[in-house]
Amino acid sequence: MDRDLIKIKEIFIRALGKRWVSDNNRDLTFYNRDLWPREVISSKFGVWQHKPDLVLWPSSIEEVVNIVRLVNQYHINLIPFGAGSGVCGATVPTSSTPSVIIDLKRMNRIINVDYQSLILEVEAGAIGYPLEVQLNNKGFTLGHFPSSIYCSSVGGWLAARSAGQESSRYGKIEDMVVSLKVVTGAGEIIDTSDILSSEIGGDINQLFIGSEGTLGIICSAELKLNYLPKFKTYSSFIFKRVDDGLGAIRDIMQEGVGGTVMRLYDELDTYIALGHKKSQDKKAGLIQKYIDDLNGDLSDIFLKRVISFPQILNTLSQFIAQGCLLIVIHSGNENEYVKYCQKRCREIAERYGGEDSGEEPALRWERNRYSISYKQSKIFYAGGFVDTMEIATTWDRIADLYYEIKKVIQDRAFLMAHFSHAYEDGCSIYFTFASRAKNYNEAIKNYDFIWKNALDTVVRMGATISHHHGVGLSKIEHLRKQLGKNFELYEILKRTFDPNNIMNRGKFGSRR
Amino acid sequence: MDRDLIKIKEIFIRALGKRWVSDNNRDLTFYNRDLWPREVISSKFGVWQHKPDLVLWPSSIEEVVNIVRLVNQYHINLIPFGAGSGVCGATVPTSSTPSVIIDLKRMNRIINVDYQSLILEVEAGAIGYPLEVQLNNKGFTLGHFPSSIYCSSVGGWLAARSAGQESSRYGKIEDMVVSLKVVTGAGEIIDTSDILSSEIGGDINQLFIGSEGTLGIICSAELKLNYLPKFKTYSSFIFKRVDDGLGAIRDIMQEGVGGTVMRLYDELDTYIALGHKKSQDKKAGLIQKYIDDLNGDLSDIFLKRVISFPQILNTLSQFIAQGCLLIVIHSGNENEYVKYCQKRCREIAERYGGEDSGEEPALRWERNRYSISYKQSKIFYAGGFVDTMEIATTWDRIADLYYEIKKVIQDRAFLMAHFSHAYEDGCSIYFTFASRAKNYNEAIKNYDFIWKNALDTVVRMGATISHHHGVGLSKIEHLRKQLGKNFELYEILKRTFDPNNIMNRGKFGSRR
Repeated sequence: MDRDLIKIKEIFIRALGKRWVSDNNRDLTFYNRDLWPREVISSKFGVWQHKPDLVLWPSSIEEVVNIVRLVNQYHINLIPFGAGSGVCGATVPTSSTPSVIIDLKRMNRIINVDYQSLILEVEAGAIGYPLEVQLNNKGFTLGHFPSSIYCSSVGGWLAARSAGQESSRYGKIEDMVVSLKVVTGAGEIIDTSDILSSEIGGDINQLFIGSEGTLGIICSAELKLNYLPKFKTYSSFIFKRVDDGLGAIRDIMQEGVGGTVMRLYDELDTYIALGHKKSQDKKAGLIQKYIDDLNGDLSDIFLKRVISFPQILNTLSQFIAQGCLLIVIHSGNENEYVKYCQKRCREIAERYGGEDSGEEPALRWERNRYSISYKQSKIFYAGGFVDTMEIATTWDRIADLYYEIKKVIQDRAFLMAHFSHAYEDGCSIYFTFASRAKNYNEAIKNYDFIWKNALDTVVRMGATISHHHGVGLSKIEHLRKQLGKNFELYEILKRTFDPNNIMNRGKFGSRR
Repeated sequence: MDRDLIKIKEIFIRALGKRWVSDNNRDLTFYNRDLWPREVISSKFGVWQHKPDLVLWPSSIEEVVNIVRLVNQYHINLIPFGAGSGVCGATVPTSSTPSVIIDLKRMNRIINVDYQSLILEVEAGAIGYPLEVQLNNKGFTLGHFPSSIYCSSVGGWLAARSAGQESSRYGKIEDMVVSLKVVTGAGEIIDTSDILSSEIGGDINQLFIGSEGTLGIICSAELKLNYLPKFKTYSSFIFKRVDDGLGAIRDIMQEGVGGTVMRLYDELDTYIALGHKKSQDKKAGLIQKYIDDLNGDLSDIFLKRVISFPQILNTLSQFIAQGCLLIVIHSGNENEYVKYCQKRCREIAERYGGEDSGEEPALRWERNRYSISYKQSKIFYAGGFVDTMEIATTWDRIADLYYEIKKVIQDRAFLMAHFSHAYEDGCSIYFTFASRAKNYNEAIKNYDFIWKNALDTVVRMGATISHHHGVGLSKIEHLRKQLGKNFELYEILKRTFDPNNIMNRGKFGSRR
C-alpha cells in the first residue's frame, strides 16, 4: 500500500471511525465487481483484476462531503456503491489511480413522508424490498419493482435510470423524482428541492439521474408515492407471432388502458414462462428436455448440453412453439375501472388474433416475479454464462430491431426475449442469452463477440443501447459510437461537477 | 448605428437575403418588448427603453447556425423570439451590447408525423393554434392548450416550460418532449434524438427546456402525440371555501380520476367565471356593478373606479360571495371510462361539501377558454394595469400560500385567483391582479411593490416562484434569492454552452 493511501486511510479512520474503513482483503475482493456477467466469468476462472484499495461506509451526507473533499486533495478515484447488483460494471474499479469504494448502505433512513402531498424523502442506501414493505404497511407504494428489488438501492436505481416491472403505470425511477440531494465531485451539496427545478430553468435532477456516480454522489431523494391499489385483475393471451402481440400492446398503451404490468414473451420465452404440454414429436421431446433443465432443477449434464449447442437449440425451438404469451395485470383503487381496462385490453388483443389463456400465467408470473435472476448462478456453475440485454426503440422499428438482434446472436447463444416496458411511443426488448464458457479466453471472446455485434446493430438501427441497466463499462464504447460528437456533452458535465476527475474514473465522460 | 453593426447587417443580408434582415424603426419598436405588463405600462406612457438593433428571420437550422457563428465573431447579443406573448420580459433587450432579435416564425413546418409511435416533429416557429388544428384534422392532439395558443409558438413553450389548460391529463410541455434540435451559443447543433437521452446518462433535453434562450436556440422538437378524445363530460361544483375545493382536487388527482381540465376558482374569480344572481343587498349591488364592468363591456368610468380602490373592492367582495367554483372536464376514447371518472369526481366533491352546479359553468369556460387574456388591454387603456402570477407548491402548503399572498397584495390591487394545474403532489395558484396607473412613476412603483412583496413571500414559504410563465426579467432577482449558491449552476451551464455570452444576455445565468 503506498504512502498516500496509508495516510488517507488514517484520515478516514479519524473521520468515520475504525469500523467504517476497511482494506481487509475479503472486503476488497467483495467490492472488486458488481454483477456484470463479464466480471462474474472472470471471478469464476479466478481472475480478480479490479480490487479497490479501500472501502468506506459513511453514515451521513456530512461525512460524504468530508470524504469527497479529502479525496480531492489526493486525486484518487472514488466509486459510489449501492447494493452491487448492477449488471454493466459501473462500480468496477478500473482507474489508473488507487480506488476507494464509498458504500452508502448505512444511509438507509426514511427522512420524511408527506402524506398530504404523497412525497417520500429517503436516503440513497435504502434497499428496495424493505422500503416497499414499510410503505405498504402504511397503505402506500413507491411503484418501483425491479427484479433486483431484494438487492438494489434507491441510489443505485437513480444512478442507472432503473425501471421496475410496473413502469407502464408508475414510470421509470426518473419519473418519480421530486428532488435530490447530491454531493458533487467538487464536494458541494446540491439540494434541488431549493431549485424546484421542474418548474423553472433547466431540470437539474435529470443531469444526476443516470450519471452512474461520475458527477457526484446522490445521498437522498424525494420520490412520489402512490396509494396501494385495492383491486387487481390478471389476464393473458396467446398470439401467433411476436408482431401481433406488439401491435396489441401498442394500441393498448396508446388508448390509455395499459396494465400496471404488461409483458409479451417470444416463442421460446413463452415456453418457459407458460410451462408446456408434452409433445409427441421426437425433436420436440428432445428440446423440451433441454429446456426443462434450463427452467427446472438444472442437472449439470443436461444444462451443459443446452449451453453447448445454442444454434441447434434455437433452431429446434420452433418445434415447441406454442405462440407468444402476453400477460397483463391491471390494478387500481376502483374495481369498476380496473375491470373496464381489462375488458378493453381483451378486445384489443382479440383484434390481433390473441386467444384468452386465463389468469394463471399472470398469477404465476407474479408469484415468481423476483426469482428469475437468482437462477442464473447455476448456469455459471455448469460451465456457461448468461446475460441480459435491454434495448428500446419506437413502435415503428421495434419488430425489425427484434429480428435483427436475434439474427446476430442466435449462432452464438441460446436466446429468448420479452417485451416488458411499454409506453405510448415505444417499447423495450429484454433479451436473455446463455452460452458455454469452457475456459476463460474462449468465454470472454464469445461474450465480447455477442455484445459487440448486437450493440453495433442497435446503433446502426438508431435504437437505444440501454433501457434501464445503464452504461457502466459494458456499453461505454457503443455510447461513444451512438453519440458521436455529442459525447463531448458528458465530458463537459464531468469537468463542471467533478473538476479533478475523482468520481468513478473511466466510466462515461472521463479518463481512467 | 455603429460600424460593426453596419458591417454585420451587410453580412446578414448576404446570408439571409435583404427581406429577412431589418433595422426599420417600426420593426425595432415592435420587438422592443414581449407582453410583460411592466413593459406594457412603459409603452403606454411612451417609454420605449429597449429597442433592439436588428431583426432577423431565418428559415432553416443551417441559417441559424450561420447567424450564431457570425454573432460570436462580433460579441453582440442574440435574442431568440417566438410569438412575443411571454409575460416576464424574457425577450426584452437589456444587454449592454447591441442586440439582434432572431425571430423563428418562418421555421414553422411540420417535419414528420410518425403515426405508429405517435411522435410529431415540428419546427420551433410553429404557432399553437394552426398546429393543433392540423393535428385535429388527422385525428390527433398535441394536448397543449395555453391560453396564448393563438399567439405562442412551440419554441416559446419549450423555452419557458409552458403549461396548457389540459396539463392534468397531458402534462406540461417538458413532459411531451422526445428530442430537440438545438443550436448552442457556440454554434454547434445538438440533436438529442442521437443521444436518446431519456434512457441513458443525463437527460440533456431538460437542460434546454426552460433555458429561455440563454443557452442556445431550440430549432425543432419531437413531441408526443395523442389520439383526439372521442368523449367528454362536463361537471361543476360549488364549495363553501377554497380549502374544501383544494381537498377535493387533491383526492381526485391522487386517486387517478382527474379531469383533463380541473379549475377551482376563489370567491371573486368564481363570481366572474360563474356569472351571478342579482343581490338585494346594497353593498353587494355596488360591487356587482363594479365587477360587471370588469367582466363586461368595461365602460371607462366604472372601470376607473374598480381599479382605483382595490382594497375596498377586495373587502366588499365578501358580500357577493357565492362560494368557490370547481369545473371539471373529463375526456377520453371510451364513454364508459369517462363517465366513471366523472362519477368518482362527484363522489369526492360531495365528500368535501361540494354542491353539483351542472354542466353549464364548464361549457361556458370552454367556449371562452382563450378569450380572457385578450380583455386585459382594456384595463391598460382605462388607466390601470393587470398582471398574473402563477406560483406552485405541494399540497401540504397550498392553502397557506394562497392566504399569505392574498394578504400581501390585497391592499394594493384588486385580486382574484384560481387553482388550475393540479398534480398528484401539488398544484399551482394563478393570481390575477389589477390596479391603477395614473402616471408612469406611480404605476411602476406600485407594480414593483406588489411583485417584490409577493415573491418575497413565495420564497420565504419555500414555494415555486413560477409554474409556467418562466423567469424572464421579472423574477430573476427572486430566482437568485431562492437558489442561493445553487444559482451558480446556471452560470456554469451558461459558460458551457454559450462561452462568449452572446445568447440573451442579462437573463438568468449571465451578465448583461
